[in-house]
Amino acid sequence: MPAVSRKGLQMPESPIRKLVPFAEIAYKANKTVYHLNIGQPDIKSPTKAMEAVAHHSLEILAYTRSEGSQEYREKIAAYYHKNNIPATANDIIVTTGGSEALLFAMGTIADTGDEIIIPEPFYANYNGFATASGVKIVPVISKIEDNFALPPISEFEKLITPKTKAILICNPGNPTGYLYSKEEIQKLAAIVKKHDLFLVSDEVYREFTYDGSKHYSILEEEGMEEYGIIIDSVSKRYSMCGARIGCLVSKNKMVIKTALKFAQARLSPPTFAQIASEAALDTPQSYFDEVIEEYEDRRNTLVKHLQNIPGVKVGVPKGAFYCIVELPVKNSDAFAQWLLEKFDVDGETIMVAPAAGFYSSPGVGLNQIRIAYVLNKKSLVRAVEILKIALKQYKD
Amino acid sequence: MPAVSRKGLQMPESPIRKLVPFAEIAYKANKTVYHLNIGQPDIKSPTKAMEAVAHHSLEILAYTRSEGSQEYREKIAAYYHKNNIPATANDIIVTTGGSEALLFAMGTIADTGDEIIIPEPFYANYNGFATASGVKIVPVISKIEDNFALPPISEFEKLITPKTKAILICNPGNPTGYLYSKEEIQKLAAIVKKHDLFLVSDEVYREFTYDGSKHYSILEEEGMEEYGIIIDSVSKRYSMCGARIGCLVSKNKMVIKTALKFAQARLSPPTFAQIASEAALDTPQSYFDEVIEEYEDRRNTLVKHLQNIPGVKVGVPKGAFYCIVELPVKNSDAFAQWLLEKFDVDGETIMVAPAAGFYSSPGVGLNQIRIAYVLNKKSLVRAVEILKIALKQYKD
Repeated sequence: MPAVSRKGLQMPESPIRKLVPFAEIAYKANKTVYHLNIGQPDIKSPTKAMEAVAHHSLEILAYTRSEGSQEYREKIAAYYHKNNIPATANDIIVTTGGSEALLFAMGTIADTGDEIIIPEPFYANYNGFATASGVKIVPVISKIEDNFALPPISEFEKLITPKTKAILICNPGNPTGYLYSKEEIQKLAAIVKKHDLFLVSDEVYREFTYDGSKHYSILEEEGMEEYGIIIDSVSKRYSMCGARIGCLVSKNKMVIKTALKFAQARLSPPTFAQIASEAALDTPQSYFDEVIEEYEDRRNTLVKHLQNIPGVKVGVPKGAFYCIVELPVKNSDAFAQWLLEKFDVDGETIMVAPAAGFYSSPGVGLNQIRIAYVLNKKSLVRAVEILKIALKQYKD
Repeated sequence: MPAVSRKGLQMPESPIRKLVPFAEIAYKANKTVYHLNIGQPDIKSPTKAMEAVAHHSLEILAYTRSEGSQEYREKIAAYYHKNNIPATANDIIVTTGGSEALLFAMGTIADTGDEIIIPEPFYANYNGFATASGVKIVPVISKIEDNFALPPISEFEKLITPKTKAILICNPGNPTGYLYSKEEIQKLAAIVKKHDLFLVSDEVYREFTYDGSKHYSILEEEGMEEYGIIIDSVSKRYSMCGARIGCLVSKNKMVIKTALKFAQARLSPPTFAQIASEAALDTPQSYFDEVIEEYEDRRNTLVKHLQNIPGVKVGVPKGAFYCIVELPVKNSDAFAQWLLEKFDVDGETIMVAPAAGFYSSPGVGLNQIRIAYVLNKKSLVRAVEILKIALKQYKD
């Protein structure tokens, strides 16, 4: 019998997937499960986007251009302009989700065995794209005590080798919710220029910033034209995760030329989803104001209630809709499993994402979980209540 | 300035893309261009599919399961059952086009430096997926004189090394239109079993067979459970190229388990497109009967008129909607460029795909082009007329 590849064997499983069989046990036992584990928002997608698709008049569902339709890329460029990001349509390749933009970016800048430095904890699927691309992720630990701020630049410098091709950040961060300051971006800009690296910034949560703070993009920073690559997506911005539309943005013409060849091989991004995503760009500011107010309110509620639990430490998020929570347990994998399999409060329990899967360094984050605050406030309060009771009962 | 990867530099450009600047010259000169170069059918997508999307009632465009929705996979399995392919929902991973299914297949079965044997000429984007995956394509030449029938198995055996992981075929073939016989599939089955290789079969043109001949799938062949991987797509079947929905099918559980990890990393295939594709499965047989009659008619017309041109040789297609044509020119790249840049008949010209891009062996196919018969019959006749006049005028 022929065997699968070593690469295939090494492909990581999602840290949440491992829990699915236990979630199924909970469902079978008729438990209500509060899902704190996934980033699927409960917010409605913009009406304009959903109606644009409903009102489509296509007779042939044809390919679009590999880089995305001209009209859509021009509208994206206008959106960036409003956000102080000087990108034109020619600097943009529309991709099938931020996922594909990451895959194209890795293929464009790194060969098998090359290294990319990423502050951890980081979005778990970076591991998958790196394995698929033959790239080695080199982690730099950021700490819950600092709310996961940028580690000292000296820590990055220690890790740079001739194989290092880029530093990759997620800003605001999944799973940390950390929002890099302008000064932190400038420090990163300086180090990539010094060492001739790319700075890849996953900015899919750009709009989700709290406490009046503002996102600072790597391409707002002067002199980053040749170094910066933005990864973007409509998934969270418009609560359109199922569209699978994102983009790769760079002012570096060789990067765009090369990424375009990856895009051409797969022909085009999905057509209906581009119709929805183009229409979504007409979403009024009031939609975001409401959504962000809602998330900020949820965050405040969540953090306040979590901080009331003895032994619990929270990395207070300034953006996105996740936070990392340290628990008074030894192994959050076992705890998450126990919550689903063995525990309930009046028939209710919670599902959380164990944080170890968001770290690349072995043994780190074992007592942490990631919480996505994509549930309404009442559910969040109840979920934290359940967590509190669970922690009292749980024995490692 | 940081540099792009070697892999990125090696990514091939599409053989058609190179002609785009010359097509633009033709457009600027107000020439009418008959596009024989691309596989974008002019056939309408099934009404049911397009209406299903228009009638969607989604409020949140959410992720689906990474492997595609259960309902959709069950309906695909029923479709396969009708086609004598014993696949269940569990053997199917829904992908973003056949493109992604190919990428997942390569990642699942091959590591960097591994080899896949492919009869050439072959679909040019196999080169892109192979480069992106670090896989080496090893070509076996099939010949226009045989209408591109399967090369002798001894030719495959000569090329098998410890690095060989699979044989990849496209059946019916793009760009050849060749339909493998049951006997040919059995020969391939025997060799992959003997050498413990995978047999990957791109069957996206399954329905498009002519002269009353019938497609024989690798999974119809007994004993292929552990060896066979089907690549499939709705793009051509339902003229829904812009959906970007395909699937990977295998009875080999380890293959599915591994491919699923690649699928999980990119979260899910596009949601609207799955709605369209699921509805497309309800397309009545009459749709296919009409479409296939239309293509068969076009093929007959095209081949007849091509064979009337002195010095032209045609690989007569038995399936799909492409054919390879040998021309009395030295370099079809230069000829294709000349057609757009310098030539017209009463303001009309044609765009063809030079065939060299469909070969991996250097210097092969230089005097061949690929024609896609995705235009109506009247346009096809006129296009061939233009080709005939062009060949008279053209001087190498």
